[in-house]
Amino acid sequence: MVEDLFMDDMRLRGKEVLRNVAFESYEQLSTKIGHSALQVNYKSVGSDDIQPILAEYLVGCDGAHSRVRKAIPGVEAVGVSQPAIWGVLDGELITDFPDIWSKTLVYSEEHGSILIVPRERNMTRLYIELKSCQTPTALADLARGDDLGQAFVMEQARKIMAPFRIDWSCIEWFGRYQVGQRLASHFSDESASVFLAGDASHTHSPKSAQGMNTAMHDSWNLAWKLNLAARGFARPELMASYEEERRKVALDLVNFDYEHANQIANGDAVALAKNFLFNVRFISGIGAEYGPSILTQPRVIHEESAFACAEAARPGSILPPAKVTRYIDANPVDIQLDIPMLGQFRIYLFAWDVFQSGTFLESFSNSISSRTSFVNALSAAATASYARQPRPTAPEDVYTRPERYVKASELFTFALITTMPKSEFEISDLPLLLQESRWTLYLDNVPEQDTRGVRCTEKWLGRLAPGEVAIVTVRPDGYVGSVGRWDAGLDESGANAARWLDEYYGGFLKLPDEPST
Amino acid sequence: MVEDLFMDDMRLRGKEVLRNVAFESYEQLSTKIGHSALQVNYKSVGSDDIQPILAEYLVGCDGAHSRVRKAIPGVEAVGVSQPAIWGVLDGELITDFPDIWSKTLVYSEEHGSILIVPRERNMTRLYIELKSCQTPTALADLARGDDLGQAFVMEQARKIMAPFRIDWSCIEWFGRYQVGQRLASHFSDESASVFLAGDASHTHSPKSAQGMNTAMHDSWNLAWKLNLAARGFARPELMASYEEERRKVALDLVNFDYEHANQIANGDAVALAKNFLFNVRFISGIGAEYGPSILTQPRVIHEESAFACAEAARPGSILPPAKVTRYIDANPVDIQLDIPMLGQFRIYLFAWDVFQSGTFLESFSNSISSRTSFVNALSAAATASYARQPRPTAPEDVYTRPERYVKASELFTFALITTMPKSEFEISDLPLLLQESRWTLYLDNVPEQDTRGVRCTEKWLGRLAPGEVAIVTVRPDGYVGSVGRWDAGLDESGANAARWLDEYYGGFLKLPDEPST
Repeated sequence: MVEDLFMDDMRLRGKEVLRNVAFESYEQLSTKIGHSALQVNYKSVGSDDIQPILAEYLVGCDGAHSRVRKAIPGVEAVGVSQPAIWGVLDGELITDFPDIWSKTLVYSEEHGSILIVPRERNMTRLYIELKSCQTPTALADLARGDDLGQAFVMEQARKIMAPFRIDWSCIEWFGRYQVGQRLASHFSDESASVFLAGDASHTHSPKSAQGMNTAMHDSWNLAWKLNLAARGFARPELMASYEEERRKVALDLVNFDYEHANQIANGDAVALAKNFLFNVRFISGIGAEYGPSILTQPRVIHEESAFACAEAARPGSILPPAKVTRYIDANPVDIQLDIPMLGQFRIYLFAWDVFQSGTFLESFSNSISSRTSFVNALSAAATASYARQPRPTAPEDVYTRPERYVKASELFTFALITTMPKSEFEISDLPLLLQESRWTLYLDNVPEQDTRGVRCTEKWLGRLAPGEVAIVTVRPDGYVGSVGRWDAGLDESGANAARWLDEYYGGFLKLPDEPST
Repeated sequence: MVEDLFMDDMRLRGKEVLRNVAFESYEQLSTKIGHSALQVNYKSVGSDDIQPILAEYLVGCDGAHSRVRKAIPGVEAVGVSQPAIWGVLDGELITDFPDIWSKTLVYSEEHGSILIVPRERNMTRLYIELKSCQTPTALADLARGDDLGQAFVMEQARKIMAPFRIDWSCIEWFGRYQVGQRLASHFSDESASVFLAGDASHTHSPKSAQGMNTAMHDSWNLAWKLNLAARGFARPELMASYEEERRKVALDLVNFDYEHANQIANGDAVALAKNFLFNVRFISGIGAEYGPSILTQPRVIHEESAFACAEAARPGSILPPAKVTRYIDANPVDIQLDIPMLGQFRIYLFAWDVFQSGTFLESFSNSISSRTSFVNALSAAATASYARQPRPTAPEDVYTRPERYVKASELFTFALITTMPKSEFEISDLPLLLQESRWTLYLDNVPEQDTRGVRCTEKWLGRLAPGEVAIVTVRPDGYVGSVGRWDAGLDESGANAARWLDEYYGGFLKLPDEPST
């Protein structure tokens, strides 16, 4: 179902997935970093002919037994297997056990544990521990593929559930696995043209639903970097950050999972619930955070500020949800979701008062638009790049109007958040850069709609001092990149802020050498 | 777009709309009420042949100039036309006027008013008053269809908007109308087999978006009654209630609209905003309420209760939104939306404590299931009726599981709302009727998720006294039908409550005479 969503979207944009082919091998035709060319060899199912395809990049999303991983020189899966073997059954249950509609753990000291997960269409997923198989003999049987079939697993489930009765009116899927926590020794090759994502780069137990979720985060982290690389904007540091960031999350996951899987098998319900609650921020995806790096800068206070400590929009974390009013149409919006993700960076400016911060905004806007600005040079190059190779469009764009968000720049969406009342200023009072960003002008005036009852300014910044202007930069994947603060009363602050952006983006972006194809 | 949603849904359920045919006339083949047969005559577009179709019912949803209305003996549109003539333009604007993304009123004393309504796809709708046409001569011109074409209307818009400039990069739709507030003298024929809905039964200005919305409410009010009539469950009183209820709403609308349209033309922005705010409950649809009738009983307190005055779930009004936790899967839900609308009535029981109210629940459940219960007899007949003629199904049903809500009865969904903690009782502690209704067992324990911070019990009932049990019945269209309260400590309360339901439903439902076809 999830795959269909992606494929339908791709199809709307004119892209199709090639099916029934298996990766065989790849060769590096050129190793100049950033301009690699790969020959990828594949076989069609039912044929022994090897066919080549030329590509700039190769991403192995081919699961725990990834052939792409095995093809990268020097890369291997490192980790341990757990002795526990589990069966998985998806089906419709006939049972007098009442609690199949919540996530439930049933523990039998003799026979092992069952984790019950309700599914769509009246179905229930059962993870069934095959405790009797945790002997060297049984493990050897398993290795030979003997005996531990569906009927055996169903019988184990019945034993664990007794005295409640359990049967199935239909079974849609049966699986069996031995939990292993493993990480690929590298998530890419040396030339940064071959990458691993999802189970190909990390494996763990399926019980906290982190497989698909983490894989999508991997891909999302990689996708925008690949886009910038393909357009010639990526420094090698940007491509290296993929492994750096996702390995950290994979390690966090494997460590959590090891503990969590063991606690499921131990059957201590209270400890398990406590462990789950403690880790729920991580499990929900919000808690997957990146360490300090060129992409996610440790907080630097450029002008002294006493109020920077309670920041919730922390570099390396996802933007916290907040509610604001869109100036142009007076609609309340979830600001962290309002700007569509088009591969561009977001630059949020915070000012209490548009007129008091007028000098800052004007000088910031002028500096950003000046010939010496790196951000400006990047924007100009991006205009050329997206003119040559536009974003794939879809009929739905006529409703979502992506062009509203890339008018000032194809690479940066600028946004202004102010607590000033709408009636006290007009869009025409703003500098040109922000006039061109009129769809991302927000009024911070609906704290009552926030889950914690606070304004976006307070939620993201902790506090903004009177006369202070702050900038929060956000990466194309929604992670906060950097946070800066300036005294709007100083003449040079606007120019300083623009220079601060130049320095930040200069750490991992570059101007394309030549028009990319 | 809205039509497509309905048609897609119909198509999923195997129903198609016959297009390119025009209603000509109908004849009543039999006039016995409740068993009418109609011959409806229609013409295909481009043909003069009149073709007949046989039908039990005919609903004229054919707009302000409804031919069905004209065909019903003795029915005519009654009301007045306003002198104002308006043009409507949907298109993409080129303008320096900044406020086209909110609903905006522009008033020129000399040239008249423009109402600006933002639309999808960058479009803006303009309602343009053609003030210069409010003379007898101009009205006569209009009657002849002269002069007031698109170019004229665009020119009027430019005059009203000056000194702002306005032009169109494209125009998708142009229309022109004279506002008239009219009501059909009857909404159905005497035999209750021909009905009018939407503009066919009431016309008014389009400016508060009440045309389509009220039409859908009309149809929705009629649809469930027609379903019951077609299955033989409807007393004549039920079919008569359509006109009674919807005429009241149409009158409310026409009165509001008259005032509102005049205020738009008057150009007093403050008075208009005040009028809009005062009427916003009505405009949103929530405020469309029905008066006391056999369907929407004035509040009757069967056992004395001191706390019945603050009831928010009032007969004749829509259910107020409230949050509860579904017992079976511990999911928080919007209770007013949780039970899918399958043409059935809903019966909500409120009890603080499942065990203290045990006698009531048991005796209520037994009475409802007894051979003397009218509700039980209706349910039995409904089982037969839905077996002969099932609800049309759609593939999506596999996700929504409608069968969960009609297990105890095809005609009634029973629900229990309690503040008791989940850990203190099991579904198996409940009487069978409520065990069969396990998907509609709710815990009233999430007031913090409510917009007003109160529990469903308080929101719907004002207050429920200790030891009291209350019942709120809801019609298939989501309107509250009746509210009753009983002292759970009295032995006869449960049976009394069941009898109270029998009396209520007996007012407008009956057992089918014979198996319907």
